[in-house]
Amino acid sequence: MEMNSQSQEKSYMASIPSKLHEFIKKIKKIGEEDPRRIIHSTKVGLALTLVSFFYYFRPLYNGFGQAGMWAVLTVVVVFEFTVGGTLSKSINRGCATLLAGALGVGAEYLAGACGEKGEPVVLGLLVFSLAAVSTFTRFIPNVKRKYDYGVLIFILTFSLVAVSGYRVEQILELAHQRLSTILIGGATCMIISIFVCPVWAGRDLHFLVAGNIEKLAAFLQGFGGELLACGGDESSKDSSGTNVEKSLLKSYKSVLNSKATEESLANFAWWEPPHGKFKLKHPWKQYSKIGGLTRECACLIESLNTNTITSKPLAPSEFTAQIRQMSTESGKALAEIAAAMKKMRRPEAHLQSAKAAADRLRSVLQNSSDLQEVAPLLVAASVLIDVIGFADAIAAAVGDLAREAGFEGVKTTEAHRRGIVSPVDDGEHVVVEIQAELPEKNIITT
Amino acid sequence: MEMNSQSQEKSYMASIPSKLHEFIKKIKKIGEEDPRRIIHSTKVGLALTLVSFFYYFRPLYNGFGQAGMWAVLTVVVVFEFTVGGTLSKSINRGCATLLAGALGVGAEYLAGACGEKGEPVVLGLLVFSLAAVSTFTRFIPNVKRKYDYGVLIFILTFSLVAVSGYRVEQILELAHQRLSTILIGGATCMIISIFVCPVWAGRDLHFLVAGNIEKLAAFLQGFGGELLACGGDESSKDSSGTNVEKSLLKSYKSVLNSKATEESLANFAWWEPPHGKFKLKHPWKQYSKIGGLTRECACLIESLNTNTITSKPLAPSEFTAQIRQMSTESGKALAEIAAAMKKMRRPEAHLQSAKAAADRLRSVLQNSSDLQEVAPLLVAASVLIDVIGFADAIAAAVGDLAREAGFEGVKTTEAHRRGIVSPVDDGEHVVVEIQAELPEKNIITT
Repeated sequence: MEMNSQSQEKSYMASIPSKLHEFIKKIKKIGEEDPRRIIHSTKVGLALTLVSFFYYFRPLYNGFGQAGMWAVLTVVVVFEFTVGGTLSKSINRGCATLLAGALGVGAEYLAGACGEKGEPVVLGLLVFSLAAVSTFTRFIPNVKRKYDYGVLIFILTFSLVAVSGYRVEQILELAHQRLSTILIGGATCMIISIFVCPVWAGRDLHFLVAGNIEKLAAFLQGFGGELLACGGDESSKDSSGTNVEKSLLKSYKSVLNSKATEESLANFAWWEPPHGKFKLKHPWKQYSKIGGLTRECACLIESLNTNTITSKPLAPSEFTAQIRQMSTESGKALAEIAAAMKKMRRPEAHLQSAKAAADRLRSVLQNSSDLQEVAPLLVAASVLIDVIGFADAIAAAVGDLAREAGFEGVKTTEAHRRGIVSPVDDGEHVVVEIQAELPEKNIITT
Repeated sequence: MEMNSQSQEKSYMASIPSKLHEFIKKIKKIGEEDPRRIIHSTKVGLALTLVSFFYYFRPLYNGFGQAGMWAVLTVVVVFEFTVGGTLSKSINRGCATLLAGALGVGAEYLAGACGEKGEPVVLGLLVFSLAAVSTFTRFIPNVKRKYDYGVLIFILTFSLVAVSGYRVEQILELAHQRLSTILIGGATCMIISIFVCPVWAGRDLHFLVAGNIEKLAAFLQGFGGELLACGGDESSKDSSGTNVEKSLLKSYKSVLNSKATEESLANFAWWEPPHGKFKLKHPWKQYSKIGGLTRECACLIESLNTNTITSKPLAPSEFTAQIRQMSTESGKALAEIAAAMKKMRRPEAHLQSAKAAADRLRSVLQNSSDLQEVAPLLVAASVLIDVIGFADAIAAAVGDLAREAGFEGVKTTEAHRRGIVSPVDDGEHVVVEIQAELPEKNIITT
């Protein structure tokens, strides 16, 4: 028994180096995934060290006094990963402090007029009601999105000024000191954030949305190959190739849950000054529209994936070939759109061939006397027709973005831009009634 | 021209009351949607007023001095909507302050030993490296999830102590004061949060996940009716009924984007003490598994919705009836699961009839000589068979939760619990190869 616990302890001690090794590998991976994380950490250290000097060295200390610590505090809480995040917090903090400070002084005067007994009662009531009302405004979606931190600082500063004012005679001098130190802290953060290896939320949003389209494209292109491997010769499917393909086929899954990241980046991008090819009134809202369409398309792909990979299609090769082409062509078109978007050029979606494949598919379906044979792939075919509809909608949305943001590229006419794929003719053929045109009511834009 | 601008101004002035009315209505709606928001706002006001007294009244002021403002600051930044959020922030803040304070004092001593010239250099280096390293740890997913705020406060306190210590002789006394005021602020928040109309993140998570299952159930039940209205008699479809149904059919869309809320609630729930029927080691992780399955199922429903509502099925009534029954029965089963979960009882999923409907559907498909006729509904049928597979997986996952959390109810055996729906027999029939059993690789659990 004792031997056992000793050996257990030994094995535990022995596992420490390997665990440490694991941990270091994990840390290294986080840094390698996005080296800007390491740069950001250094930037925070730099800003904090710089600001500490305001508090540390005697001449500045005499100027700012205890308020100098507000500069340190501001840097720590305000410095965010993206420029937009830092600006949003700095501006929120500055404005809220100014407003709440002024209101706090007003509350002081009001309470002072109520006599020594009335003063604490009035101040208590004011603090209570202002805190309660302000806290409630944080539930308003628009306030929460852009000014949440500002409201927090507003409550904080008002309470501090209203309550501390009773003691500190030189409340205006204190306010002046505190504001200037917050300004120093905030300005340091903003300057370092903007000028030292800036991380623009707008740029990140742009590449996140384009990357999501790319992931869908990768799936659709890979899906064609998968179909061939399943329906065709088994010998071509070696295990290593399948693994690589499997991970490619899975990458679209991250698209499904990208909404929260997209939203927060869009909120931060709103605060950012013009940078690179992103102008002052860059249409940030358009990204959430494209993102919404991409997620809906990913949903369709998810159902395609659930369905077809489980089944073992035994369909005639002509039918399989049509579906395969439809998938590959729509994947190619989406890849082109994503590539154009990444380069900030006007996209030229080549969905015509996907469309043509869909047309041929329909004719195969009509002329096939025994539909029983193609039934297992019918679902894939139908979902892919829907996917092409979404690909078209994505192309149009990216086109709108390109126009609004003034991307470079071939000038396309409105008709050409929207009409790359004409809606699939419906009504005549039973099989075709699944329309390739995107139904308006199904677009989630938020 | 002047007239125009005057009339414009007039119309703008005239629109103010209606805008104000709009705004008040919006505010009222936010309060009515969740009255706990109003209670929460009041609670924050109460906590802040209480804590202000520590700073305000003379005897306490003498005891705590300027440090009293840390109590106010703590309340403002620590008080969150849910108990878990408040506890998480309070505990993070307390522990981080303690640890960073101790390290800060250590840094002071170390720097002091380096002479007057060396001191600022050493302190600067220490602040820089600690801030940089700590900031980097905030990118580690596990740290970010639970200790993000703690790391922030750690950097803040360390910098303040290390830098301010140079001036303030009585650093230990200051630390003691600051810690006790933070303790007072944190304790006030925690007590009010737990004992005055508590909002438990765990309870919210439980009902969010159950509610999402309910939304899927509502869609599936409504989808049966929709199919009937489309395929059957047009006269039964009056416009008001359709509108209600449409909003019912849309509610599942919110499920698709519920991941972020679910995750943050699960993180907060982790900090909460046992409450109600939620015990100390409540299996919070299981919720994200159920949530993931529900979202995947919502994805299938999304593709079902994109597909079928656009098409105008002309299928034979027997086939439509089978699909309808499959949809309605699986909807009913999910509704039962959700209802049992809400009541914290062991669920008894009655998926047998949905399964039987699927079986009958298959026999219809096999015996139907002209598949062309049923083709438009084939997609819906196939997706619904997948949905039943997910419903089964959700039933099993909720069963696991019920077992782990010790929900009350009929004691079911393992075989009964998991085997409510036996996997669909595959291989024999071409159409049936879309398995009702959920493929393991498609489960997103995170």
